[in-house]
Amino acid sequence: MQTTMMKVPLSLNHLLERAGRLFHGSQIVSRLPDKSLKRHSYAEFYRRTRALGAALQALGLRQGERVATLCWNHHAHLEGYFGIPAAGGVMHTLNLRLSPEEIGWIAADAQDRFLLVDDVLLPLYEKFKHLHAFEQVIVVPFSGAPVPPGFTDYEALLAGADADAFVYAPHQEDDPVAMCYTSGTTGRPKGVVYSHRSTVLHSLVGCLPDFTAVRGIDVVLPVTPMFHANSWGMPYIAVMMGAKLVFPGPHLHPDDLLDLITAEPPTLSLGVPTIWMTLIQAYDASLKAGSPNHGRWKLPEGMRSMVGGAAVPESLIRAFAAHGIWILQGWGMTETSPVGTLSYPTAALRGASEDERFRRAAMAGVPAPLVELRLRGDAGQDQPWDGQSVGELQVRGPFITGSYFQVGSPDDKFTPDGWLRTGDVATVDELGFMRIADRTKDLIKSGGEWISSVDLENALMAHSAVAEAAVIAIPDDKWGERPLACVVPKPGEQATPEALNQLLLSKGFAKWQLPERYEFIDAVPRTSTGKFWKLKLRERFSS
Amino acid sequence: MQTTMMKVPLSLNHLLERAGRLFHGSQIVSRLPDKSLKRHSYAEFYRRTRALGAALQALGLRQGERVATLCWNHHAHLEGYFGIPAAGGVMHTLNLRLSPEEIGWIAADAQDRFLLVDDVLLPLYEKFKHLHAFEQVIVVPFSGAPVPPGFTDYEALLAGADADAFVYAPHQEDDPVAMCYTSGTTGRPKGVVYSHRSTVLHSLVGCLPDFTAVRGIDVVLPVTPMFHANSWGMPYIAVMMGAKLVFPGPHLHPDDLLDLITAEPPTLSLGVPTIWMTLIQAYDASLKAGSPNHGRWKLPEGMRSMVGGAAVPESLIRAFAAHGIWILQGWGMTETSPVGTLSYPTAALRGASEDERFRRAAMAGVPAPLVELRLRGDAGQDQPWDGQSVGELQVRGPFITGSYFQVGSPDDKFTPDGWLRTGDVATVDELGFMRIADRTKDLIKSGGEWISSVDLENALMAHSAVAEAAVIAIPDDKWGERPLACVVPKPGEQATPEALNQLLLSKGFAKWQLPERYEFIDAVPRTSTGKFWKLKLRERFSS
Repeated sequence: MQTTMMKVPLSLNHLLERAGRLFHGSQIVSRLPDKSLKRHSYAEFYRRTRALGAALQALGLRQGERVATLCWNHHAHLEGYFGIPAAGGVMHTLNLRLSPEEIGWIAADAQDRFLLVDDVLLPLYEKFKHLHAFEQVIVVPFSGAPVPPGFTDYEALLAGADADAFVYAPHQEDDPVAMCYTSGTTGRPKGVVYSHRSTVLHSLVGCLPDFTAVRGIDVVLPVTPMFHANSWGMPYIAVMMGAKLVFPGPHLHPDDLLDLITAEPPTLSLGVPTIWMTLIQAYDASLKAGSPNHGRWKLPEGMRSMVGGAAVPESLIRAFAAHGIWILQGWGMTETSPVGTLSYPTAALRGASEDERFRRAAMAGVPAPLVELRLRGDAGQDQPWDGQSVGELQVRGPFITGSYFQVGSPDDKFTPDGWLRTGDVATVDELGFMRIADRTKDLIKSGGEWISSVDLENALMAHSAVAEAAVIAIPDDKWGERPLACVVPKPGEQATPEALNQLLLSKGFAKWQLPERYEFIDAVPRTSTGKFWKLKLRERFSS
Repeated sequence: MQTTMMKVPLSLNHLLERAGRLFHGSQIVSRLPDKSLKRHSYAEFYRRTRALGAALQALGLRQGERVATLCWNHHAHLEGYFGIPAAGGVMHTLNLRLSPEEIGWIAADAQDRFLLVDDVLLPLYEKFKHLHAFEQVIVVPFSGAPVPPGFTDYEALLAGADADAFVYAPHQEDDPVAMCYTSGTTGRPKGVVYSHRSTVLHSLVGCLPDFTAVRGIDVVLPVTPMFHANSWGMPYIAVMMGAKLVFPGPHLHPDDLLDLITAEPPTLSLGVPTIWMTLIQAYDASLKAGSPNHGRWKLPEGMRSMVGGAAVPESLIRAFAAHGIWILQGWGMTETSPVGTLSYPTAALRGASEDERFRRAAMAGVPAPLVELRLRGDAGQDQPWDGQSVGELQVRGPFITGSYFQVGSPDDKFTPDGWLRTGDVATVDELGFMRIADRTKDLIKSGGEWISSVDLENALMAHSAVAEAAVIAIPDDKWGERPLACVVPKPGEQATPEALNQLLLSKGFAKWQLPERYEFIDAVPRTSTGKFWKLKLRERFSS
């Protein structure tokens, strides 16, 4: 027996057409380099995006060819998200936080044909252009200054294209739409290629009411860069539902974000924990009488805040909850589109205490629909979901990568039965809540027992004098490895190893799990995506 | 360039496995024939469903074979929803409201191999069993009485099966999972066959926060029969999110539903307008001092109520809104899985007046993601979305049927370019809100101009003395056709043609659009799915 259902491919173009027909009045707000706000309606977005598609086709873009973007979060980048695939191309987001050498290497590896770049990022482009020759460099006049000679002016390109006559490139649902390189702290970055199918499925799943719950009446502030795992898919989700978008442009300093939040209050915001940590500290400081910023900002009560990219300490969740803002933590990777798990109050938590809810909110959460998840022990056995048993997190699903661009098999990132080995070590409890214990390479093995650096860090960061803490393994003759805690005190505050150990003991850590040593440092080094860069700490301290 | 995403098929089994792992504590409540409540946990549901799968495989069910269900809404029907496809079978829901001849004809047409039937429905089975020989009749002991000899006891079947050893039938995402016959008022019913793919996509879309918005903490009351367009997909959606389900069993009288709502307060309920119309009348009557039911019931404030299957009059929406209950109207068909459009407050209605919001809520709404919609005029031209231009509604998408079971092409239900001709005549306005003007065959053409019977009905039903109104076309020598209004007054109330005409004029109808004649009747005849059966009225009055 056969299904009678139509064979209609999933398509990103459908989301664009839908937005153009249903949501023409919705707004897209972009913060410009001079900090002013530029507004576009969805009607303009729709028209400009189709014009971009027409222009790229006129430039000779062929099916599957890459168009790189080197842009902040703003309206033109959003136009690239939809316009490049509409023309049959693949949007390849370049990470502007990487070194010029890395960016150039990645552009060459991806064989990017065109580049869409912000004028304010041309100095960065100049530093890597010798590594890869783009056939055409299209410059977004983001600052308002004239586009320098030798480049294609993005606005002129759109103005010269015929949006009405635009015809979408024919495609199958497995055809590529976007590409993003992993930002591994070791080894060469590798390309992940998303398809129409994976992007539409990810948008539907990510939008579910227990997850980002984006409605048409929402106002969404994606602080997460659009060059980092597609800003967690939010550009696609927001356009699918017609939500208002507020883009911060290049202004990611906490004071700037608080200005923007106050001017255009979001109902949903997205960012990594470090951003929100500094933001809430700045906000709380502004509430004190006598602060130079007293009365300058207002956090919108009821705002949901999606935080991911690194574990979110419970203390940060509580700090926001005190202002009526609920932090929704997730886990994902460039390889998972990226939403893999999300921590929300499931039905099982209906009668749970406030403490229990906060404890759960500080976990990575339950797998999203369409995502399968398993834990594999050292001997390759399936680990039980008991909240105790540790194993390597492996995932599988239609928006999870099964290979890397131009990397042949066998690739040890994948199991023989086709699951992605995430490189994270985790536990899952009886309610399906996952906790990342560590990156495989960050785990501390002391006397044959694992110690979770993430657990220690989160506990340490709950101390009132601690701004940040990163725990690494140091070699030890007797125990193999022992934990070392690198602690950043808050300005003007102090914490002693004794006081920190006391805190850890009070939180249930055993004596042998306490850090062997404390180092007080000025800042934790970070990767380009804002994660703790423990490799640097290990280089500095593990001798 | 190729995508690197995994090739993982969409699968209903994934939703079942997910529920079994994540939501074991969620509840399924079923009302039994004696009106008592039976409770199952999701853990039991998961185990029983896999046992059903194992039992069907042991009975020799082969890939794609049909297992019919003739059941009310309850836990065992839900087990069939997932257990039959898990075994590789196709769940074919038989509509118990049809005549025995029709049911027998449909079972024979579908070549159903097994039947799952409620014991309380065995008398109905006896009436059509001569029309189709099921190889095995499995009886759900729903009433608690022993299963009569000659039948297979559902509970004994499950008890004898090994849920742990169950292995899902291998499948592709386009393989069938369920089948439902259209309940056309003319012509033979035709089978629509849903697939894993269409069902998963429909579940994701239907669950979106602007639509049913089902969260794990929701309590869902599906009054819509599970034999009617899969109860609008709610069984799949609820299980996907782990929501509590409250099934009314055979007790659909307003008093019974109000008892159930009071005992197990839902946060979301689903049903056709006629059910809610009688329910709100019973509830409002109970609020009057001296009513025999005074104080017996409580409608849960904040409950969302999804209503579809026929146009919802604005008066009904206002009647529920007075109790803090928001009615969410949708449009769909068996052929569309069934969610096609839904009326919700889009971003464009942010600043709209209350009256405007009610007016929009009484429309069929905007197309869901993945659903394409167009209006075709008499000459085959695309009609503009201006809220005025009328055309036949045509739809297209991955959960819309492209053919009927065993009906070869050409089939005039489909256009040459592959769209479904819905048989509805509609307008769509500039915000994408669709309004059904009529079924193609119910339109009234008077003097070359269309008159919408639905518009007249909704306006008449706003009169305080009118319980129901159905408008049909009667032949007219001069004008071709003229409208005739069949009006059911509320008990003890009266309405005159003069008063009703006055009301219509005050609502903006032109004189030539007023009914030519009024007939006051006791009840509007209904089809098996609760819709007005205008064919019967035409037979009675059009001479």
